[in-house]
Amino acid sequence: MRAAVLNRPGEVEVVERPTPSPGPREVLVRVRAVGVCGSDTHYYDHGRIGRFVVEQPMVLGHESAGVIEAVGSDVDPARVGQRVSIEPGVPCFTCHECLAGRYNLCPDMVFYATPPVDGSLAELAVIHEAFAHPVPDSVSDEAAALLEPLSVGVWSCRKGGVGMGTSVLVTGAGPIGLVAVQVARAAGAAQVVVADVNPHRLAVAARLGATRTVDVRETTVVESYAGGPGPDVLLECSGHAGVTGDGIRSLAPNGTAVLVGMGADEFPLPLSVVQERELTVTGTFRYANTWPTAISLVATGQVDLDALVTRRFTLAETAQALTAARDDPEAIKAVILPQS
Amino acid sequence: MRAAVLNRPGEVEVVERPTPSPGPREVLVRVRAVGVCGSDTHYYDHGRIGRFVVEQPMVLGHESAGVIEAVGSDVDPARVGQRVSIEPGVPCFTCHECLAGRYNLCPDMVFYATPPVDGSLAELAVIHEAFAHPVPDSVSDEAAALLEPLSVGVWSCRKGGVGMGTSVLVTGAGPIGLVAVQVARAAGAAQVVVADVNPHRLAVAARLGATRTVDVRETTVVESYAGGPGPDVLLECSGHAGVTGDGIRSLAPNGTAVLVGMGADEFPLPLSVVQERELTVTGTFRYANTWPTAISLVATGQVDLDALVTRRFTLAETAQALTAARDDPEAIKAVILPQS
Amino acid sequence: MRAAVLNRPGEVEVVERPTPSPGPREVLVRVRAVGVCGSDTHYYDHGRIGRFVVEQPMVLGHESAGVIEAVGSDVDPARVGQRVSIEPGVPCFTCHECLAGRYNLCPDMVFYATPPVDGSLAELAVIHEAFAHPVPDSVSDEAAALLEPLSVGVWSCRKGGVGMGTSVLVTGAGPIGLVAVQVARAAGAAQVVVADVNPHRLAVAARLGATRTVDVRETTVVESYAGGPGPDVLLECSGHAGVTGDGIRSLAPNGTAVLVGMGADEFPLPLSVVQERELTVTGTFRYANTWPTAISLVATGQVDLDALVTRRFTLAETAQALTAARDDPEAIKAVILPQS
Amino acid sequence: MRAAVLNRPGEVEVVERPTPSPGPREVLVRVRAVGVCGSDTHYYDHGRIGRFVVEQPMVLGHESAGVIEAVGSDVDPARVGQRVSIEPGVPCFTCHECLAGRYNLCPDMVFYATPPVDGSLAELAVIHEAFAHPVPDSVSDEAAALLEPLSVGVWSCRKGGVGMGTSVLVTGAGPIGLVAVQVARAAGAAQVVVADVNPHRLAVAARLGATRTVDVRETTVVESYAGGPGPDVLLECSGHAGVTGDGIRSLAPNGTAVLVGMGADEFPLPLSVVQERELTVTGTFRYANTWPTAISLVATGQVDLDALVTRRFTLAETAQALTAARDDPEAIKAVILPQS
Repeated sequence: MRAAVLNRPGEVEVVERPTPSPGPREVLVRVRAVGVCGSDTHYYDHGRIGRFVVEQPMVLGHESAGVIEAVGSDVDPARVGQRVSIEPGVPCFTCHECLAGRYNLCPDMVFYATPPVDGSLAELAVIHEAFAHPVPDSVSDEAAALLEPLSVGVWSCRKGGVGMGTSVLVTGAGPIGLVAVQVARAAGAAQVVVADVNPHRLAVAARLGATRTVDVRETTVVESYAGGPGPDVLLECSGHAGVTGDGIRSLAPNGTAVLVGMGADEFPLPLSVVQERELTVTGTFRYANTWPTAISLVATGQVDLDALVTRRFTLAETAQALTAARDDPEAIKAVILPQS
Repeated sequence: MRAAVLNRPGEVEVVERPTPSPGPREVLVRVRAVGVCGSDTHYYDHGRIGRFVVEQPMVLGHESAGVIEAVGSDVDPARVGQRVSIEPGVPCFTCHECLAGRYNLCPDMVFYATPPVDGSLAELAVIHEAFAHPVPDSVSDEAAALLEPLSVGVWSCRKGGVGMGTSVLVTGAGPIGLVAVQVARAAGAAQVVVADVNPHRLAVAARLGATRTVDVRETTVVESYAGGPGPDVLLECSGHAGVTGDGIRSLAPNGTAVLVGMGADEFPLPLSVVQERELTVTGTFRYANTWPTAISLVATGQVDLDALVTRRFTLAETAQALTAARDDPEAIKAVILPQS
Repeated sequence: MRAAVLNRPGEVEVVERPTPSPGPREVLVRVRAVGVCGSDTHYYDHGRIGRFVVEQPMVLGHESAGVIEAVGSDVDPARVGQRVSIEPGVPCFTCHECLAGRYNLCPDMVFYATPPVDGSLAELAVIHEAFAHPVPDSVSDEAAALLEPLSVGVWSCRKGGVGMGTSVLVTGAGPIGLVAVQVARAAGAAQVVVADVNPHRLAVAARLGATRTVDVRETTVVESYAGGPGPDVLLECSGHAGVTGDGIRSLAPNGTAVLVGMGADEFPLPLSVVQERELTVTGTFRYANTWPTAISLVATGQVDLDALVTRRFTLAETAQALTAARDDPEAIKAVILPQS
Repeated sequence: MRAAVLNRPGEVEVVERPTPSPGPREVLVRVRAVGVCGSDTHYYDHGRIGRFVVEQPMVLGHESAGVIEAVGSDVDPARVGQRVSIEPGVPCFTCHECLAGRYNLCPDMVFYATPPVDGSLAELAVIHEAFAHPVPDSVSDEAAALLEPLSVGVWSCRKGGVGMGTSVLVTGAGPIGLVAVQVARAAGAAQVVVADVNPHRLAVAARLGATRTVDVRETTVVESYAGGPGPDVLLECSGHAGVTGDGIRSLAPNGTAVLVGMGADEFPLPLSVVQERELTVTGTFRYANTWPTAISLVATGQVDLDALVTRRFTLAETAQALTAARDDPEAIKAVILPQS
C-alpha cells in the first residue's frame, strides 16, 4: 500500500509499505479521507512536538475515516464493509486512568502519528475495533474524518461545562476554534463570542454560529466585555499567552478557562483574579468517550464539518496539503484523499 | 384593580381588589399575560393540591409577565416601564437551603396562587425586584409569561443532566412535556422520544423537535426501545404510575429518571432495575436560577413558546380558560390577558 | 487442588479440581482467606439469585485474598510472592460502560461465584493481574479478603456523596451496614445513625462509630429524627421495603437514598416526598475503582475489618460456615481459611 | 465599649466606641475570643491588601466568637445567651451569585475588618443572625473563634474534592496549612504530605496528622514524590510562586491545585503540564456554607483547633498580638481575649 511518510523535517514522501494485518480485536480500514492537523504540519516543520521526536520515518495523519476491509480475530466479520471514523489513540484499558474512564490520560496510549507510532495517511490502516466508530450514511467521508477535531471541541466544552445558557468566549478561530463555536451552540450556549486576528476566520465563525466576533487587533477581549458580565467559559484555542491572560481576566466569577491551544510550556497567569473570582483553569489532552456524541452532533445537523473543508489533495500532494494554510489566510481545513 | 378569585371549588369570580402597594425591594407589575397551569385548574376543580387547601378566596395564576408600573423603596426607579417575566416564588434568602443555592426548597417560600398566597391573575401584582426578570423585546408578553413552565423544563433537564449526545425519553406531551422536548433539543440531545396517548400532542411534539414519538395505546415505551440501547434520561411529565415504571425499565445503565409530573403519593417502582443498572431516580419541585437560561433559550430562538398558545381569554373568561383543555384534545396552553 | 463446590441447593462438597493455569495477564493466587457473603448462603439455600441460576456444580466464594504463586504471560514475574486482595469481577474493558469508567455495569462482566463462573473458595484461584491488588503487611489476610465487602461500603458512600459534615442514616447493621458505618465516619460524616432490629448488632455498630442507634422494633426511623433535621444520606443495607420507605421519608431536602441491600424486585416508594424534597434515589451494583481507597482506609486504621470476623472455618467446614449466621444472633462475618 | 482600632500602618489603639445596636435580623455579640489573622497583621504593617486600603480608623479582627447579648427586630429573643461563632462576611442574599449558593462571590459582601467595614476586635460586635452560628459547649471560645480559619481549610478541601483515599500535598504549614492537614485527614485522605521551610511547623504538622513532611530547604516537592505517584490534590497555603509551580508539577494526572495562599498578582505556571495531565487549577476566596461542617469537625474531635493557639493577649496587647509571629518561629496562632 502507499503511505505518506515523514522522513525528516521538511521531507515527506509517498512510499510503498507492506499492507498491515489486523491483529486480535483489530480491523483493517481502507482510508478514504484524512484531515491535516496543525500537529502534522508541526512535525513536518520541526520534526518534534515537545518530548515527542521523529527519529525514524513515520506515517503522518490521525484524522481519518474509511471502510472496514478486513477484520482480525475476535471481531464480528459482519463489520466488513462498514463505514467508520477512526479514533486514533488506543489506550492500555487496564491502568488506573483507563479503569477510571480517563483513558486519554493512559501513560501507555498508542496514538497515530505520534513518534514512533505510524499514522493513517495511507491507503490502509489498522485500529482496535472499539475505536473504529460506525457512522451513518448522512455523514460524509470527510466529515467522518473530521470527527477527530470535533472530538477536541466536544471535550473542551465538556471540560468547561458548557451547556444551556452558558456565555462562552472562544479565543482563536482556527479549525479547533471553529468546531468549538459550533459545539457550544449545539450545547445551548446563550452567547458565543469569538476572538481572532484574522477577519476572514471571524467571518466564518459568525457564519457558523458566533453571536459576536472580536478582532483583537482592534480591541482586547477584556474591553469587549466592558460594562457587562464576562463569559462563564473561555475555550482558549490560540495557544497565545497574551490572549490567554486576557481571556482569563474577562471571565465572570466562578468561570472556567479551558486551555486547548498549545503554546509555551510556562507562562504568567493572573492568579489573583483566579483566586478572587474562584476561577477554574484546566487543559485538555486529546479526549475520551467523545465519538458517539460527535457523531450525533453531525448526524442531527447541529454541527457542520463539511463547511470547514477548504481544499482537497491527493496522497501525492501531501506536502502541499501540509503547508496549505501557510500561504492562504482563507484556508481552514485541508483534507487528503488517500485513494486518489 | 380587577382580579380573578377562586371562592370555592368550581367558583371563580372577577372582583375588585385594592391595588397592591410595593414594599421595600418590591415592584408593582401591570400584568399583560397569564398562562393557565394544570395546578390552577386543579385548585378550581378540587380546592386543594395535597396539603395546600384553599380556605379563603384566593387569586389564581402564577405564569405571568407584564410591565413594571411602580417600585418600592430600595429599587432603582429607572426600572419603571421595564417589561418583565415574573418568577412567582420568593424564598426567605437566609435559610440553609437558600444559602446553598437551592432556594426552591426553602421551607418559607411564598409562592403565587398557593394557599393562602394570592397569585397574579389580576390587573396588577407585586413581586420582589430580583424575581421580576427583564425580557428583551424579541420575547412576546405571552412567551414571557410562559417562561415559568419553560423553567420547569429547564430545571428537569438540568436535574437529568441532559446535554450533548444525551438520549432522552419524555413521557407525557402536555405543556411541560412539550417544553421539555424543546429544552432537551436545545441542550444538544441526540434523540428525544416522546410518549403519550394523544396523537395530536404527539404530532405537536414531532413538530417541536421530537425525533420519534410513541403512542402508548399501541406499544409500550420498553418495547419501543427493543433491540437498541435505552434512553439515558427519562423526563416523566405524565404523573402516571404505569408509564413511570415502564420509563424507568427502559433506561440505559447509569440512566436518570426525573419525576416532573405529579401523581399518586406513593407507587411501586422497579427497584431491582434501579440497583442492577445503578439508575438515579429524582424529582423536581419548581426550579431555581432558571430564568436567565430560559430567557436566552427563547431570545435565541432555540425554544418556541408562542407555538404552545392555543387560545386566549379575557379576565372575565377565566372560568372558561381554566377548563379549556377539558373538552378540546387539541388544546395545549390557554393564556389570559388580564388587561382585556 | 481442593475446592468447595455447590452441587445443588443445600449440598456443598469439597472436591479435587485441576489446578487452574493463569492465562495472559493473569495470576494464580494461593488463597488464604475467603469471607462468607450473604450471596454465597443464598445460592446454598436457594440455588439462584434472581436471573442467576446454579445449573452445574459451582465453586463458591468471592471475598478472597492470598499470595501470588505463579503468573501468566505478560505479567511481571516479580509479582510472585506478593500478598494480594482479589477484586472478583473482571469486565470486558472495551465496551461503552468500561470506557466510561463504570466497569461494574459491563454487560460482559465475569464475576466469581456467579453462575456459571467459579469462585475462589479453593486452594488456588486465577484472576486478571489488574484485579489482584497488592496489600501492605499491616493488612491481615482476613482483612484483605474483606476488602471486597468494604468496597461495597466505599461505593455506597461515594454514590451517596458522603463527606465532611454529612448526616448519614444506615438501615441494616449486617456486615455491609457495619462497614458502611465505618466508611461514613472515615469520610468525615458528622452523624451516623444506625437502625436495625438486632440489639447485638446495634451495639457493635456503636462500637464501630455509630453516633446513635435506633432499634426499629421500638421506634421508627422517622420518629427518631422528629424535631430535628433528617439525614442527608440514607445507606439502605437491609433490603426491607418498610424500612426503605421510612428511611426515604426521613431524609432532609436534597437528600440521597442509596439502595444497597437487595429486596423485592419492586416496591412502593413515597414519590411525592421524592419530588417535594428533590430527593435522589439510586442503587449500587457491586463497585468500581474502590480497592485503592479501601486499602488505604484499612492501612491507615480508619476502618477495622478484623473486628467483623466472628468465626473461622476450614475448607471442610464450608457448609457450617455458610449457615453460621443462621443460628447465632451475634455472628457477623464468617471466614474460611482454604489452606486449613 | 472598647475596640482595637488601626489608625494608620503600625498604629493600633484601644479606644472607646459607641455600643453598636443590632438592626433587623441582627444580633449583638459579646466577643470572647478573636484570632489574629495574617490579614490583620498585613493591614497593620502596610495599611492595605490589594485594592482594599485603610483610609480611616478601622476596628481589626474577623475570627471571633462570643455570646449573644441582645437581638434586633425579627430575631428570636430566646437566642440571648447563646454561644456563637461569627461568620464575618454578610452578602446581599439576592444577587446572581447569592441565589446560586456562591455568596462568597457576592460583589456587595460586607466583611469584617475589610476597609471601610469595622471588624470584631472589640468588646461587642453585631452580625446578621444567620451568620451567628450556635456552638455546642464542647467547643471552647477560642476554637469557636478559629472556626473561621477552619472554614478556609474546609472550603479548600471541598474545592479540591478531597475525600476518602485522596493523596494530598499541603504547601505551607502556617495556621491555614495546619487546619488544611486536619481537614484532609478528617475527609479520609490516604496521604497528607506537608511541605514548609520551618522545621517546628513541620513537626506540628506531623503531630496533627501529616503522613510525611518535606523540608523544602533540603528537597523539592517534585523530588519528594520521585518514583511514585504524585498527589491528587495540592492545597497551596504559602503564596510562594516557586513552591506553587513545583506543587503543580508534582500532581498526578487529573489532579487539582487549590491556591489558598495569597502571593503575587501574576506568576508563571507550568501550563503544558496542566494540559498534558488535564490538571485543574483553582483558587479560594473566603468560603460559603462551611460553618455547620466546621462545627461538626470540632465537636466530633476530628479537628483540634485548641492545639493551634500558642499565645493569648488582652485587648490592650493587640499590637503585640499582631506581631507575635514575627519574632517567634514557634508561634502559630495568637488569640486576643477582648473582655480582658
